[in-house]
Amino acid sequence: MLQIGPYTFHSRLFLGTGKYSDGDVQKQAVEVSETEVLTFAVKRMNIFDDSQPDPFENMNLNGFKLLPNTAGAKTAEEAVRIAKMAQAAGMCDMIKVEVIGCDKTLLPDPVETLKAAEMLLKEGFVVLVYTSDDVVLARRLQELGAHAIMPGASPIGTGLGIINPYNLAHIIEQSDVPVIVDAGIGSPKDASYAMELGADGILLNTAVSKAEDPIKMAQAMNYAVHAGRLGYEAGRMDKKWYAQASSPLEGLGQL
Amino acid sequence: MLQIGPYTFHSRLFLGTGKYSDGDVQKQAVEVSETEVLTFAVKRMNIFDDSQPDPFENMNLNGFKLLPNTAGAKTAEEAVRIAKMAQAAGMCDMIKVEVIGCDKTLLPDPVETLKAAEMLLKEGFVVLVYTSDDVVLARRLQELGAHAIMPGASPIGTGLGIINPYNLAHIIEQSDVPVIVDAGIGSPKDASYAMELGADGILLNTAVSKAEDPIKMAQAMNYAVHAGRLGYEAGRMDKKWYAQASSPLEGLGQL
Amino acid sequence: MLQIGPYTFHSRLFLGTGKYSDGDVQKQAVEVSETEVLTFAVKRMNIFDDSQPDPFENMNLNGFKLLPNTAGAKTAEEAVRIAKMAQAAGMCDMIKVEVIGCDKTLLPDPVETLKAAEMLLKEGFVVLVYTSDDVVLARRLQELGAHAIMPGASPIGTGLGIINPYNLAHIIEQSDVPVIVDAGIGSPKDASYAMELGADGILLNTAVSKAEDPIKMAQAMNYAVHAGRLGYEAGRMDKKWYAQASSPLEGLGQL
Amino acid sequence: MLQIGPYTFHSRLFLGTGKYSDGDVQKQAVEVSETEVLTFAVKRMNIFDDSQPDPFENMNLNGFKLLPNTAGAKTAEEAVRIAKMAQAAGMCDMIKVEVIGCDKTLLPDPVETLKAAEMLLKEGFVVLVYTSDDVVLARRLQELGAHAIMPGASPIGTGLGIINPYNLAHIIEQSDVPVIVDAGIGSPKDASYAMELGADGILLNTAVSKAEDPIKMAQAMNYAVHAGRLGYEAGRMDKKWYAQASSPLEGLGQL
Repeated sequence: MLQIGPYTFHSRLFLGTGKYSDGDVQKQAVEVSETEVLTFAVKRMNIFDDSQPDPFENMNLNGFKLLPNTAGAKTAEEAVRIAKMAQAAGMCDMIKVEVIGCDKTLLPDPVETLKAAEMLLKEGFVVLVYTSDDVVLARRLQELGAHAIMPGASPIGTGLGIINPYNLAHIIEQSDVPVIVDAGIGSPKDASYAMELGADGILLNTAVSKAEDPIKMAQAMNYAVHAGRLGYEAGRMDKKWYAQASSPLEGLGQL
Repeated sequence: MLQIGPYTFHSRLFLGTGKYSDGDVQKQAVEVSETEVLTFAVKRMNIFDDSQPDPFENMNLNGFKLLPNTAGAKTAEEAVRIAKMAQAAGMCDMIKVEVIGCDKTLLPDPVETLKAAEMLLKEGFVVLVYTSDDVVLARRLQELGAHAIMPGASPIGTGLGIINPYNLAHIIEQSDVPVIVDAGIGSPKDASYAMELGADGILLNTAVSKAEDPIKMAQAMNYAVHAGRLGYEAGRMDKKWYAQASSPLEGLGQL
Repeated sequence: MLQIGPYTFHSRLFLGTGKYSDGDVQKQAVEVSETEVLTFAVKRMNIFDDSQPDPFENMNLNGFKLLPNTAGAKTAEEAVRIAKMAQAAGMCDMIKVEVIGCDKTLLPDPVETLKAAEMLLKEGFVVLVYTSDDVVLARRLQELGAHAIMPGASPIGTGLGIINPYNLAHIIEQSDVPVIVDAGIGSPKDASYAMELGADGILLNTAVSKAEDPIKMAQAMNYAVHAGRLGYEAGRMDKKWYAQASSPLEGLGQL
Repeated sequence: MLQIGPYTFHSRLFLGTGKYSDGDVQKQAVEVSETEVLTFAVKRMNIFDDSQPDPFENMNLNGFKLLPNTAGAKTAEEAVRIAKMAQAAGMCDMIKVEVIGCDKTLLPDPVETLKAAEMLLKEGFVVLVYTSDDVVLARRLQELGAHAIMPGASPIGTGLGIINPYNLAHIIEQSDVPVIVDAGIGSPKDASYAMELGADGILLNTAVSKAEDPIKMAQAMNYAVHAGRLGYEAGRMDKKWYAQASSPLEGLGQL
């Protein structure tokens, strides 16, 4: 069971709701993923702009926890404003802080992210924070009281997978709150790997919505998260340089 | 469905039977793995040596296909002798050729492996061949008529995972018979990765038997094989250097 | 030529001065490295504590630019205090900001690092900043006016090499001031790789001082930095999936 | 000093002669590389076909050792025929065996390669063998008496660098004759890495001829080979998971 603030989830897979070409495909993908948490950019919701389609039009939202995010914000103040809009619209008291600091890579701004998290925590939100894989920044966010840390595996929408397992492992090791690996997951092996490193959950979007068959990929990701979690709990074998090596890692350090 | 020679399998996970510390644990691990194929070294079977324990003592073998292997052979002739012993004992008409050429790494001998495969095919066996990830050797084995190619991800018992995805991808691309990735799998992500590359199945042993909790790891591997297979069928998203890159791989080649 | 603030260097290799077991070995290593910049922890200098040996005892410091660093500081204020001590002692007007935020990994604290850089820039120092490979943080440091950005390849003293070439490439691409890759370099290939990514220089210490033969390794690093710089300037070939691929990266994104 | 059969070389960098767009550029690249060995496909030489340009037209070949290769051969017999043509033309008594088994990847055929090596050794040639990185095949070639083993880092012309450092390390560890890493080197870091693993030399072509500035890249490769060799001789530091880890590789096996 995954516990974030006051909420409890059976599924450790969170899904984004963007970039689907077909609402019906999205609905089925969400179903087979068995996710309980859907994230979406508040700025893209039509409650604030009637000209835009409702991303949830075809979906029965009962049974889902909605996780609005502050995508589009470039400063802490903007992020707070967006979060309050979502709250006012009765969407959720849970918010994913996302303050982008680079238009090219969509990587987060550490300073504004930290500030936004602090402000939103003071406002009483349940705060999940999208962040880079900077180890000390993750600790700082936790010290502020963030309810979950969401380090990126690689930049949003790239599908490059886990570039730096070292940093993720350290973030996980030092964290007392859940670590949800968010962004960059490209295929099931990436999701499994993150979970094997000890992550408490995964948030992904493009890997499913931009797969050739999003429904099948959603199912694959569901299995992958289970595989990785069980693999983590099972305790993997040591790596060895030789099958018969007396000391497990003998030789490995030379590569 | 996986078809090897005349046999059809629902599960794409083959399990080895060595190195378990506890027969009951092994039995449960095999069950949750949902494997249909168990492989074992003929040389270690007690039908030939009453002083050794029966690795299958606690298991009901109904419903399993047994895949004896020629482990211990260093020449083609030895491998053929072992295969015939297994056949004479009524074990199976399916054999996994394994001719080791290096005591330290347990890597296979390409020349003797090729010879053994040729001889056993002439004798009418259904032949699955453990081989290195040499791309042309794999093609040669297929041209001989081998029923499945079993390239290693990394050396037996090391858990180093997939060292050379490039070669595996090429072996899979060029093969008309099933490719079962055999040896070196260390954790679920490795199994998923092999399947995502298009492998038809996975054979593993140590990753389960030497996990802290072999039963849980067997279940993890079951999920991972499903995740990887579905991920392969679903068609993964392209990798991108920037989320907004116009051309998918722009920039990637510079790393 | 490498230009940092008002200073110009022919060599792109900066050397740390710690962890040598033998002063004479250190002296020779420094010589063959052809470095022009030596860095050292102000806190370890005996001008402040006569009980400690002088790390430069055996070295003729003429011809070297000294780069004191603030190692040992955990806050911006401490870092500033250390920098001012160094200045007062007439060591240098150049300072390397190093504010550690994690005792286990020795990774830097982004918030205090940013603050320290800002304060020292206001005091008129030439400021080089040791930082994580957080892309947006690097940009922020540059916007403050930092004279050089020094992202880590991997944590100090680990020799793990370049874990995240992606982030380094982006930091380099977006930077108008020199980028010196600092920390984690373990062997010559790592130094060459960093330079090939476009880094303006390398700072390393342990890779030389803890090599079996530090003098030979210093020479190796000197060559590696030249190799990598020339390789960068020469413009490497594109990577290809097949030798004859019509489109360079065709296929690569599937791995 | 590198000793292959009766020949001794100061430089550990061998250069191919194909794919240059400009003869003068090639000449200068060869010069700054300080190579002593030039390899070329016998089949492409105009002594056998007057319609083709002489790749060495602009070069003074004094001081170079020529290493003809059997590129274009798909069988051992063809390779032997090509080698004898080269011998008859007085080119060299040294031959690089290259028998391609796959048109797409240009990977070598292990069976025909082994046969060709055996036949040419019986004919008295000094035989260097281009091979895959199959560890046992490399040993077999050495047992036949091959004068040097030339495993590929990755397929010819791809620039993918060293995909499988594990296999290269084992081939080098077990070999009593020189190991020259041949094919796949894309940039200086790759050349340095191969040498750090203990290779005795490097053969490359495309990385220089298809660089934007081949002359500069040739110089870079010269430095890289020196850097890697010195790094190997110097004995690199151990990798560590934490800078302060008591046991060097503690933790590394979990990734």
